[in-house]
Amino acid sequence: MVVRGAPLIGATAAYGLCLALRRDPGDASRAAARARLLATRPTAVNLRWALDRIEAAAAPCPPAARAAAAYARAAALCDEDVAVNAAIGAHGLVLLEELFRRKGGRGRLDVLTHCNAGWLATVDGGTALAPVYRAHDAGLPIHVWVDETRPRQQGAALTAWELAAHGVPHTLIVDGAAAHLMQRGRVDACLVGTDRTTRRGDVCNKIGTYAKALAARAHGIPFYVAVPTSSIDLALDDGLAIPIEERSPDEVRLARGRSPEGHAATVALAPPDTPAANPAFDVTPAALVTALITERGVCEASAEGVARVGNQP
Amino acid sequence: MVVRGAPLIGATAAYGLCLALRRDPGDASRAAARARLLATRPTAVNLRWALDRIEAAAAPCPPAARAAAAYARAAALCDEDVAVNAAIGAHGLVLLEELFRRKGGRGRLDVLTHCNAGWLATVDGGTALAPVYRAHDAGLPIHVWVDETRPRQQGAALTAWELAAHGVPHTLIVDGAAAHLMQRGRVDACLVGTDRTTRRGDVCNKIGTYAKALAARAHGIPFYVAVPTSSIDLALDDGLAIPIEERSPDEVRLARGRSPEGHAATVALAPPDTPAANPAFDVTPAALVTALITERGVCEASAEGVARVGNQP
Repeated sequence: MVVRGAPLIGATAAYGLCLALRRDPGDASRAAARARLLATRPTAVNLRWALDRIEAAAAPCPPAARAAAAYARAAALCDEDVAVNAAIGAHGLVLLEELFRRKGGRGRLDVLTHCNAGWLATVDGGTALAPVYRAHDAGLPIHVWVDETRPRQQGAALTAWELAAHGVPHTLIVDGAAAHLMQRGRVDACLVGTDRTTRRGDVCNKIGTYAKALAARAHGIPFYVAVPTSSIDLALDDGLAIPIEERSPDEVRLARGRSPEGHAATVALAPPDTPAANPAFDVTPAALVTALITERGVCEASAEGVARVGNQP
Repeated sequence: MVVRGAPLIGATAAYGLCLALRRDPGDASRAAARARLLATRPTAVNLRWALDRIEAAAAPCPPAARAAAAYARAAALCDEDVAVNAAIGAHGLVLLEELFRRKGGRGRLDVLTHCNAGWLATVDGGTALAPVYRAHDAGLPIHVWVDETRPRQQGAALTAWELAAHGVPHTLIVDGAAAHLMQRGRVDACLVGTDRTTRRGDVCNKIGTYAKALAARAHGIPFYVAVPTSSIDLALDDGLAIPIEERSPDEVRLARGRSPEGHAATVALAPPDTPAANPAFDVTPAALVTALITERGVCEASAEGVARVGNQP
């Protein structure tokens, strides 16, 4: 968890494989490095996607040329990430503009997001936040409800920070408050990222996402997912088959933040021996997803929709 | 927020009025004390309920006898609370036993609760936890999923502590994890308390409750609310009309707990100037509530059901 965010995990793994190839470009070493990197995180599919691309670039080369080929591919992969996110921003902007028009073009457009799918989670630009930044820059009166996203508070610590840095109006809430705001008509759309999306459009994302999708459906609120096609797993239909990373119970028993003096600090929220479960992701079935926003356009969360944007190499 | 938990708020307000009557039993002073106590918390209806009962006992007496009458009524009110919770425990136990039978009497019975409606929230016995304690004592293999309940972590700090003290198996989770557990078939029932329930069965309870009810409905999981009839507001039909207390944004920006040395400590989870909203309660419409467990029996969450158990003085 030094690196987080599916796209950034992919980019970092790519350079991890580069480092291994620089040390030893042999097949055995390459395979070992790949296996070790692949085992670091089970949920996000970008990790495998990025390693496959570095492999494909390096393997055909003579050993002495492999590291250089890998580095070149990793750099290209990072540039691609930036371009992908820019395209997601452009496609998402169209959706947000349409929502605002349907609201009569008055008041503000309230978007709710969970966790952090901003530029801190990618090489640059962000996925779910890319359309938000574009909308704000285009003069749309956008406001973001930021789920704090326990247990690691990526919403409170990262998304709130990112939005403030960009000047986007936002309000932090606890995870339990989102359904209440939807019930009171204060959310126009949900917009989240994904760690892995299946061939039929089931969306795996940070724990807590599924509850937002259920609430959004109950209130007729569109639920959009920003999906770089690199996070689509075409080998998988059923989102419930995605392995869910189970993290340390200490993340639930404790909260990490900053002390009044500004230092990193931790407080215990529960008695020390309290048993705790910490599934890090959940799965939102395609039926609850209004649309996927990919770099190749907006599509239905279905086998047909996903096939149209595909995950062609 | 020195005192929390709807039943305990009622009991404490009763003694607050006693103290005022001891100082000055006159009508003006009594009215001022009542108004001041009533304004402390807008959401829980037990506050008004308890003050009305002390008033009814004290007002007919000559001034010199009012304080004694008030103290006697307050003590009776506390005894009633204990008896009410024991009855809720007995009625709820029948429901839990039935659920376990329907499961084939094998494995364990997984109950999810939100916030704290245990004996720490009442004079004694608890409301939502009363059936849990009864079931555990009766040998039912009950296990409780404890929502941490941000922003004040009553689940992590209070419910986990209570359950551990009683020896009831439990597991702490973040609020966002409940829907995931329901989706994976790991929750047999939800059981929560209430700060105010309307004449038609809408349930106002700690923020985050509504999201559990939506998830429970999506997965066909029964959603029970433990309701002392003192928390039923017969003057109100529509739960959405209940005033929702908006607390300090600092509760959302910060987490309070204990430092590694065991001292009360606070960490900032978000940048200091982050705007935050902190609605403390939400409303679950009656249609999502499987049944109300009152001290007078289990009833449907509907005008008819509530009328049967009533709120007769």
